[in-house]
Amino acid sequence: MALSFEKITAAEREGFYKTLYHRRDTRREFLNDPVDDEVLIRILDAAHHAPSVGFMQPWDFIIVRDSAIRQQIKDAFETAHKEAAEMFDEERRAQYQNFKLEGIMEAPLGIVITCDRQRTGSVVIGRTANPEMDLYSAVCAVQNLWLSARAENLGVGWVSIIHHQSLKEILGIPEQIVPIAYLCVGHVSHFHEKPELEKAGWLPRMPIDQLIHRDQW
Amino acid sequence: MALSFEKITAAEREGFYKTLYHRRDTRREFLNDPVDDEVLIRILDAAHHAPSVGFMQPWDFIIVRDSAIRQQIKDAFETAHKEAAEMFDEERRAQYQNFKLEGIMEAPLGIVITCDRQRTGSVVIGRTANPEMDLYSAVCAVQNLWLSARAENLGVGWVSIIHHQSLKEILGIPEQIVPIAYLCVGHVSHFHEKPELEKAGWLPRMPIDQLIHRDQW
Repeated sequence: MALSFEKITAAEREGFYKTLYHRRDTRREFLNDPVDDEVLIRILDAAHHAPSVGFMQPWDFIIVRDSAIRQQIKDAFETAHKEAAEMFDEERRAQYQNFKLEGIMEAPLGIVITCDRQRTGSVVIGRTANPEMDLYSAVCAVQNLWLSARAENLGVGWVSIIHHQSLKEILGIPEQIVPIAYLCVGHVSHFHEKPELEKAGWLPRMPIDQLIHRDQW
Repeated sequence: MALSFEKITAAEREGFYKTLYHRRDTRREFLNDPVDDEVLIRILDAAHHAPSVGFMQPWDFIIVRDSAIRQQIKDAFETAHKEAAEMFDEERRAQYQNFKLEGIMEAPLGIVITCDRQRTGSVVIGRTANPEMDLYSAVCAVQNLWLSARAENLGVGWVSIIHHQSLKEILGIPEQIVPIAYLCVGHVSHFHEKPELEKAGWLPRMPIDQLIHRDQW
């Protein structure tokens, strides 16, 4: 009808949904094969086209290939992982400790996504009532990257069991920059049919109709 | 090679990327046509399949169709919008005030995505070192919904210029639940070729090579 309406066709939509539903959090299945730089730039560019509040594009991307640096990150994970185990009650602690929760050394590279909260100055369209909006924009970039990696048949695992201060020290991230995610990225032997925590019986998938409200909570 | 590796084909990948790059923040282009309930459930289900920390699925979805309720939300936007205008220096204030920044009444429905921080108890796998991870999971659900809406040729606009306390009061959201996003959703006359703030010269798209670091910041 109008000039620049680019319709997504049924076949394109199917490709989109197949990608979305087959995305997984990868930990154990990484192969050591290198990731083509061209593919890497494609998934970073997809991240760069996430929505951002006031078009501030607050993200940066650090590609971590050096294995000595990744070993330092792995050590920082181990520290946070041990602290975390102490927080679970005894019953769940053993199960927690048995989960494989990262693939920092197995994946050939890590990607850190950060948020520069001052990128375009202190007043940003859309960040006035809700100052967290720039952080949320950077999270949208994570999800764009994750999905596009799946479209490229690459696995991604978000390592959240790490203190961001450790990441900042290891990678020389400036004080005012906020790390959002450390992502392990690489080719994989396979993708799981279901999320691993679901398969392990840690928690079930919630029925969606329990989550939908109409007009009022 | 392995059992459950579902390869994304080149054609499927193209459908995915077309969807991703044609996603826009919609404000002015909404049509009043109703959104099919089947399509609505599909985009909510896509949101429900976002990654979530510890598989906690912390999100809820409130579908807001009632126009009297949407009018209250629009009023809350106006309040926050006026406050925001005061924060810009004079030079930019006039331009800010001229932007159309929401389509609350034009779109036939709003979707609120929230985060229940206690959904699966207080200790959550992956939320130990970084307590914000559940909020970030809910943001991933926003981005999944946004992209799948685009795949369904629906427009989405994130209204962040609103105090979340107002949203909670208008929609009866319980005290412990955190609103993440108010999204306007509907059919559109067209999608813009570029983000509107880019087209308006508010800010340029940053060259991606300025955003990529290797091994160290």
